[in-house]
Amino acid sequence: MADRIHVTYEITASDAQAGLIAEAISREQTVELPPGAYPEHIEREIVGRIEAQTASRNGRSRVEVSYDARIVGADLAQLLNLVCGNVSLLEGVRVVDLALPAELTSVLGGPRLGIAGLRKVTGTHRRPLLVGAMKPVGLTARELANLGAQFARGGMDIIKDDHGLADQPWAPFRERVARCSEAIAAAAEQSGTTTLYAPNITGPSDSLLERVAWAVDCGCPAVMVSPLLQGLDAVRLARDAGVAVLAHPTMSGAVFSEGRGIAPHVLYGTLLPAAGCDGVIFTVAGGRFPVSRETSLAVARRIGGPRTAGEPALPILGGGIDVADVPSWIDRLGTEIGFLVGSSLYASGNIERAVRNLVATVEHSVG
Amino acid sequence: MADRIHVTYEITASDAQAGLIAEAISREQTVELPPGAYPEHIEREIVGRIEAQTASRNGRSRVEVSYDARIVGADLAQLLNLVCGNVSLLEGVRVVDLALPAELTSVLGGPRLGIAGLRKVTGTHRRPLLVGAMKPVGLTARELANLGAQFARGGMDIIKDDHGLADQPWAPFRERVARCSEAIAAAAEQSGTTTLYAPNITGPSDSLLERVAWAVDCGCPAVMVSPLLQGLDAVRLARDAGVAVLAHPTMSGAVFSEGRGIAPHVLYGTLLPAAGCDGVIFTVAGGRFPVSRETSLAVARRIGGPRTAGEPALPILGGGIDVADVPSWIDRLGTEIGFLVGSSLYASGNIERAVRNLVATVEHSVG
Repeated sequence: MADRIHVTYEITASDAQAGLIAEAISREQTVELPPGAYPEHIEREIVGRIEAQTASRNGRSRVEVSYDARIVGADLAQLLNLVCGNVSLLEGVRVVDLALPAELTSVLGGPRLGIAGLRKVTGTHRRPLLVGAMKPVGLTARELANLGAQFARGGMDIIKDDHGLADQPWAPFRERVARCSEAIAAAAEQSGTTTLYAPNITGPSDSLLERVAWAVDCGCPAVMVSPLLQGLDAVRLARDAGVAVLAHPTMSGAVFSEGRGIAPHVLYGTLLPAAGCDGVIFTVAGGRFPVSRETSLAVARRIGGPRTAGEPALPILGGGIDVADVPSWIDRLGTEIGFLVGSSLYASGNIERAVRNLVATVEHSVG
Repeated sequence: MADRIHVTYEITASDAQAGLIAEAISREQTVELPPGAYPEHIEREIVGRIEAQTASRNGRSRVEVSYDARIVGADLAQLLNLVCGNVSLLEGVRVVDLALPAELTSVLGGPRLGIAGLRKVTGTHRRPLLVGAMKPVGLTARELANLGAQFARGGMDIIKDDHGLADQPWAPFRERVARCSEAIAAAAEQSGTTTLYAPNITGPSDSLLERVAWAVDCGCPAVMVSPLLQGLDAVRLARDAGVAVLAHPTMSGAVFSEGRGIAPHVLYGTLLPAAGCDGVIFTVAGGRFPVSRETSLAVARRIGGPRTAGEPALPILGGGIDVADVPSWIDRLGTEIGFLVGSSLYASGNIERAVRNLVATVEHSVG
């Protein structure tokens, strides 16, 4: 297994059919040709190997296929292509597990800061980290900076841009990041807290590095990326540029359908941290998106679990977290998690006080 | 409508529920906040407007929502985010139509060559264009170049890399592109045909421009991108660098599930050409992927249809085209299409002859 990528596909079919489909997958994802149409050594080296097949339950079988890691190298677009590329076009085939060889995860590096590093930067220990969002699009950079300052004064650990804030005329990227970072730092200093600001750098591919550099110039130790809009590799790019990276889940739901695509714990928990995400935002049960509690827990555990390379990442529970649910999430998952709390703080009319109450509630929850 | 982006969502719900869900979408995709939590002018300017709602049929309603185009600017990641971002996480909401204002499509530019330009470059008129693929991964650059030469001698109009060819040790990117372009050009000259070679540039985000430049240095007038692996913006980047762009559909199936994600004709037919694709490869009925004939036709017509900016793009029918089906596709769609024919040519044992036969068959089909 040392140098192979192991993918588990759930196949909606009878056992006999699942075996044939697995055979087809092992070729579709590699040679895309019938046997005999290429040299013999390629059959052995390149075609996926079927490692295991479980008997079907409720009409679904699981088949584990392994691939030579050299097909991917350190190329994240190629990793996604190998794991789910053309297979995504088949109905009834879903990626439900993925194990990457240490060789690959080491080259990529994984989360550099992870939970531990984010705690160090924010100075918040023991309790879950709290993440807020500045929004909406349409506000000026000054108005957003003012919101950021309120979050910081209340004691929010991390403030991120809304994923809809890009480089719009109301608050152009550079002005927004400069004003917000300044206002947040000043407010945090004033109130004696430490607040990390993560601007959204998602945008034109050839501006990513420039945006990261601007964020760094403005004193931001972290940025936010939407990998499903921009490609997994945008995370690697930001990571390699030396900042912490938070991932936003926008567009990810499109790949989570029943019976095809990629299971949430694989995308959020294996692929994104492997690409270098220090924190991964995902939607959980009890909010405004339809997610089961079981899936929410599986995703959180995979994001925050041990890794062959890099630090355990921070699972950031979001999507309309109900503050009343905070204690039960802590009961189930422990304290090494984050909560993204957005709209409810705005609705209160006094963000600073609402954040302070939230911090108190969470501190109280961990006793 | 001049300056607004119109998205039609199909919502699986009763009429009354669909109205509420549409309201929620108009906020989720923009302000992500309840009314009153931001200044009044943002309610008017930024929140999506519900333009129309059809009565439900079979439990599904269609709702058209329009958004201020300034939210997107010319940022393709932001366009995808606005159209389908967080909505992708809702079950029972699917993007089934999209109309972009001329203001946006003009800035992006659209397909520069399109069908007409690709015909000019390849010198092939009247009949559908024929596209072949060099594969599999695991062959050396010399072996791939040798395959490319066989395709070219047979008279293939366009030869692309397999989407699984990236920068692997067996055939590193630069060596592969240099050898293949040389071999294909020499073979085409020898046989008096013109063959366009489109290398796959998909890979690390910060190497895209370098890969395009290398392709240009090697004399390639076109490249291939996998936008679902790399982000829509990679297409724009290549287009703006001055080459023709073909899109590969790998990973796109993940967003096509029943009742959520994006409908194929919107992704392939509206978004990809708007981003600048001159040719769009997609999987059709009768091949090895489960696609209906109706969807195949709708996709082809949308790709090849008139545009507010740029040329009509080339719909490239693929995914295991059965040569016997060629006449019926031409009957339905006319001659302004392309066929990607791969595996069956390899299986023949003599690629050059198989391509020559294919060309003859297609020429015969158009009379």
